[in-house]
Amino acid sequence: MKKKQKLVVINPNTSTMMTDRIRLVADSVVGADFELIVTNPPSGPVSIEGYYDEAMSLAGLLGIVKHHDDADGFVIACFDDTGLDAARTITTSPVVGIGEAAFHMASMISNKFGVVTTLARSVPALKHNLVRYGLSARCSGVVASDVPVLEVEAQNGKAYKRIAAEVENAIKNDRAEAVVLGCAGMAELALALQRDYGVPVLEGISCAIKLVEAMLYLKLENSKVCGYAQPRLK
Amino acid sequence: MKKKQKLVVINPNTSTMMTDRIRLVADSVVGADFELIVTNPPSGPVSIEGYYDEAMSLAGLLGIVKHHDDADGFVIACFDDTGLDAARTITTSPVVGIGEAAFHMASMISNKFGVVTTLARSVPALKHNLVRYGLSARCSGVVASDVPVLEVEAQNGKAYKRIAAEVENAIKNDRAEAVVLGCAGMAELALALQRDYGVPVLEGISCAIKLVEAMLYLKLENSKVCGYAQPRLK
Amino acid sequence: MKKKQKLVVINPNTSTMMTDRIRLVADSVVGADFELIVTNPPSGPVSIEGYYDEAMSLAGLLGIVKHHDDADGFVIACFDDTGLDAARTITTSPVVGIGEAAFHMASMISNKFGVVTTLARSVPALKHNLVRYGLSARCSGVVASDVPVLEVEAQNGKAYKRIAAEVENAIKNDRAEAVVLGCAGMAELALALQRDYGVPVLEGISCAIKLVEAMLYLKLENSKVCGYAQPRLK
Amino acid sequence: MKKKQKLVVINPNTSTMMTDRIRLVADSVVGADFELIVTNPPSGPVSIEGYYDEAMSLAGLLGIVKHHDDADGFVIACFDDTGLDAARTITTSPVVGIGEAAFHMASMISNKFGVVTTLARSVPALKHNLVRYGLSARCSGVVASDVPVLEVEAQNGKAYKRIAAEVENAIKNDRAEAVVLGCAGMAELALALQRDYGVPVLEGISCAIKLVEAMLYLKLENSKVCGYAQPRLK
Amino acid sequence: MKKKQKLVVINPNTSTMMTDRIRLVADSVVGADFELIVTNPPSGPVSIEGYYDEAMSLAGLLGIVKHHDDADGFVIACFDDTGLDAARTITTSPVVGIGEAAFHMASMISNKFGVVTTLARSVPALKHNLVRYGLSARCSGVVASDVPVLEVEAQNGKAYKRIAAEVENAIKNDRAEAVVLGCAGMAELALALQRDYGVPVLEGISCAIKLVEAMLYLKLENSKVCGYAQPRLK
Amino acid sequence: MKKKQKLVVINPNTSTMMTDRIRLVADSVVGADFELIVTNPPSGPVSIEGYYDEAMSLAGLLGIVKHHDDADGFVIACFDDTGLDAARTITTSPVVGIGEAAFHMASMISNKFGVVTTLARSVPALKHNLVRYGLSARCSGVVASDVPVLEVEAQNGKAYKRIAAEVENAIKNDRAEAVVLGCAGMAELALALQRDYGVPVLEGISCAIKLVEAMLYLKLENSKVCGYAQPRLK
Repeated sequence: MKKKQKLVVINPNTSTMMTDRIRLVADSVVGADFELIVTNPPSGPVSIEGYYDEAMSLAGLLGIVKHHDDADGFVIACFDDTGLDAARTITTSPVVGIGEAAFHMASMISNKFGVVTTLARSVPALKHNLVRYGLSARCSGVVASDVPVLEVEAQNGKAYKRIAAEVENAIKNDRAEAVVLGCAGMAELALALQRDYGVPVLEGISCAIKLVEAMLYLKLENSKVCGYAQPRLK
Repeated sequence: MKKKQKLVVINPNTSTMMTDRIRLVADSVVGADFELIVTNPPSGPVSIEGYYDEAMSLAGLLGIVKHHDDADGFVIACFDDTGLDAARTITTSPVVGIGEAAFHMASMISNKFGVVTTLARSVPALKHNLVRYGLSARCSGVVASDVPVLEVEAQNGKAYKRIAAEVENAIKNDRAEAVVLGCAGMAELALALQRDYGVPVLEGISCAIKLVEAMLYLKLENSKVCGYAQPRLK
Repeated sequence: MKKKQKLVVINPNTSTMMTDRIRLVADSVVGADFELIVTNPPSGPVSIEGYYDEAMSLAGLLGIVKHHDDADGFVIACFDDTGLDAARTITTSPVVGIGEAAFHMASMISNKFGVVTTLARSVPALKHNLVRYGLSARCSGVVASDVPVLEVEAQNGKAYKRIAAEVENAIKNDRAEAVVLGCAGMAELALALQRDYGVPVLEGISCAIKLVEAMLYLKLENSKVCGYAQPRLK
Repeated sequence: MKKKQKLVVINPNTSTMMTDRIRLVADSVVGADFELIVTNPPSGPVSIEGYYDEAMSLAGLLGIVKHHDDADGFVIACFDDTGLDAARTITTSPVVGIGEAAFHMASMISNKFGVVTTLARSVPALKHNLVRYGLSARCSGVVASDVPVLEVEAQNGKAYKRIAAEVENAIKNDRAEAVVLGCAGMAELALALQRDYGVPVLEGISCAIKLVEAMLYLKLENSKVCGYAQPRLK
Repeated sequence: MKKKQKLVVINPNTSTMMTDRIRLVADSVVGADFELIVTNPPSGPVSIEGYYDEAMSLAGLLGIVKHHDDADGFVIACFDDTGLDAARTITTSPVVGIGEAAFHMASMISNKFGVVTTLARSVPALKHNLVRYGLSARCSGVVASDVPVLEVEAQNGKAYKRIAAEVENAIKNDRAEAVVLGCAGMAELALALQRDYGVPVLEGISCAIKLVEAMLYLKLENSKVCGYAQPRLK
Repeated sequence: MKKKQKLVVINPNTSTMMTDRIRLVADSVVGADFELIVTNPPSGPVSIEGYYDEAMSLAGLLGIVKHHDDADGFVIACFDDTGLDAARTITTSPVVGIGEAAFHMASMISNKFGVVTTLARSVPALKHNLVRYGLSARCSGVVASDVPVLEVEAQNGKAYKRIAAEVENAIKNDRAEAVVLGCAGMAELALALQRDYGVPVLEGISCAIKLVEAMLYLKLENSKVCGYAQPRLK
């Protein structure tokens, strides 16, 4: 029997509740050929809301990548794609962020996609990522629902309403043809929103897992020339 | 036993030799959950080299999409991504072009990728696609090897040399961190080039198949709002 | 007496009523040095609304270009500029699309122009053209009036009102300094809208005819290097 | 008999030799329906080479526009399109610059055009214009031949050689499909270069005259909303 | 005792009242190491509102630069940065425009800044500058308050209200994180608006003076290669 | 006597030799009104070469910002502008990176500037910053000299030669009008290169110090709306 490939999903914040919810989503889509590890750093910010939390989560996140040096692939389960480039320098295994995963997927099923995230403080970092990836040309807008990361929950009707209002706004006013949910914690809302609004609603965790799986089947590795070259021993 | 999902790979030109070579590549990567159909239109251009061939292949290509109205996913196996947008309007099943597939994948394992294609006449259409997808920001250059589509073959040492020279040029002069081979017929050269030049070398057929599979696992469908709305009955 | 130059205006859809209306506009502006032929393909979509209709009209459209191989210039009278690049590969005679014609002209009499078209499904293709031409930087927005192509008529007060509302919106909210009407069928409304709103309102048919005439006086021909090279015999 | 429309071509420098050469080119293309006036300001720089000359020519240039307040159209015959926006504010008659004219025309017969100008000091202003017009996306490069404006002459074999070398470079290395000559004084070289290099070679004077004529037939006027609003009386 | 460096602030219009107000602002920020001269041309437009006024102010403005050939630095105190490039060609001393100064400063304390100017006719020139500087990517929008230049005054409650409304709009709707006041005459309103709206509100005069001072301490001079090369003697 | 303002310059790597060299440069330009502290974190990477070192330096760098909570301004003395956005969220005092400082300054004395850095692995991060700042439009190219950070020294003739070769290349081939040295360690070479090549050569440390001083005189603070909002207590 063929050995399963090891796929490590990193929640870069320290909220184990969030890790559990990410595991739930990941488990539901991971392929039979893969062994799934969903984990978070022992210390660091409890949620990632903006540039500072991003920066403070990096040492923990990269520590996990180094610890799992036998992993075949990694997913960074934070919508800001925190530490994505740094992680790629210390492994040849593919590393996919849930933000980029959703953006790339959305751009293959729609002409323009909208992004609905949590707090306004996260919007510039997401826009900055879109510019860097090149995909800002495909994005009709990034808006905040003003629901903090840890208050996003499927059962929470109030959060759903606020997020839904922004989804509707993206479709009606910005002419988004698909909507990307800009927070790992929103994954569970995707199906309900898709049903209610009649456009594809994507969440990044499942997109990223399927993309890493695809890369592993294709035997793709990170380039080790220029930007992702192995850090020099000093 | 679960029914296999039907995945149709369309070679939009009428060269059955090319269709056979595409099938070879596709067969080698398709997942066990999918039934693969690789086909080409009965009439149209024998190879797609530039805008005119693209245009003349569309009716045949879209005829195949309509004929296979029970297909779960489509791949357009021409590096120009001919007819991609049109195909998405007449099906809800995901449709992926081998050009875009390779571009998206390359942009997740490198900071910049180069593209090496066949003839100079194809370069503007590829650049135009990159601009449209947003990914031109990630591309270090699109160059022609001056090898016509039907003369690209793995056994052909002369073609290999010319293509290899452009791959080397992309890495040395344009600082490409990965290289995308810009023609369905070049698929078989990818591994040799990767080995010879030490950077990831991607070909689009396998990338596209794995991306469509990923989309099917994720139950993603084309948006039917705005640009990909079902054509009106007239 | 000098022989008149032959100018072929192609309505790429099969609506002869539309062809007649295009002829009316074309006749009113064509110069005395030119013989005008306004025609449409024998088969294909009856109107061009979105990517699919565009694709299905190409064989007919290019057939007309090939049939009139003695023509001195061509106008493609569909605002999507369907088949523009392909047509340029099979003739050295200049080929101008009515969309690009209006965009170029508008950008020489205003800092920013707005575009008002028919249905939302056509918006992405027009935006995509603007990006490709480089002129999206000059466009304040592309909006749909939700009036289908074949319902646009000067006598139709309801259609006029909807289109006028979007023209007003472009001027007031998007700060458009000129407005381009994004459908061959809207040509007859231009003067009324210009009078009612006090900004230049351009329609593409007359712009394209005058541009092709200008090119013929200048003896300009399509480049036959790279992208518009004559298709190879295969 | 219909009255001819008055078309004023302004050489914004004070070299009457240059004015005469511009008149020669203009006379050879102007239509029978137009009365041509080719003129230059009484004072100002003797040639326009860079930002300072541009600035110092403006008062003279705008004085001519105001003086000819009955003109039906204007051409600014300096490749930098000096004073174009300012001129449009003080007349409703169309005003076309020879730089923009050539850029727009070139972008309708080629995928990418190169620009060959006189001195390096003029390159940034031309690039800046291309960005502003939106057409930098269509330009493969702007290069200097290091031939000063007043030394460009058809009979001058040395100047021709230097300019031809840059034309060749644009085609071979930058993959230009057409070439625009970036100086009013180069107009007479266009045909020879086109014959020698086999790609369209455009010069702006004739392009601009034909574009203004087209605008007059179309009854197009400058927008008087926002940017080109009539200057306020103060 | 070290000799003071001479810093010339040029109001390019002829309103001495405006010059006095600029001097007031400049005096309040200029460093002890600098001798300040604030001046305006003897003739030219009384205020700069749009392209025409810009053009007509250039000869006077550049005359001042030439007159003060012993100046160590220059500030162009018009928000359109009129004549900036031309001025840099005739001096090696740094020249800073108040528009660019505010844009550069704002982009180092915010992710996106909004611009509120006087009349709609000035908006295109400002946008055009932002594109040229590269900073349009950092700007959330340029809007007009419809307050003419000479009616902007701190004591004028009506002008304040209109400007404040646009500041509020920029923050609420365009998500501006800082606001730049787009007119030299608005300098006195900056503090009140900053206090009322809780975001940084920048005016360009003080920014430009401090930037030129910084450049002088750094011994920076204008490049004399290519675009800013000394004009040739002719 | 007025109390001096406290300006903290952070070398984000742990090389005290580098900190000393940065102090030398900083001391030579800092104004008399400021108290200068030049420091580095107790732990972290010994030099910053690429994405991984950047990420691993962040906790130390931000610790210094928090420790000096009474500082009036900060400079991040790493050319990658590591942690710039994160630092701005935890202080209202201005924070300037030496990379952005040099880019902004260079864009006010040249039309295009080139960047010469140390290793190829750093190039993508610098390009990414330029895109984010908006200033990539002003940059003629970012190239690596292949001299590692800790081997850059003024006395080192070999390093100077390699860097000088790239400076020359930027001026001759990329038409750079000014050159920015892309590494804190290169500061001491700027004057020699400027003398040898006749274009402005900027190094970021002195630019950043003068920019922060300017901001302090102007009483500018980081916006606390959206992207740089104070991190939430969690």
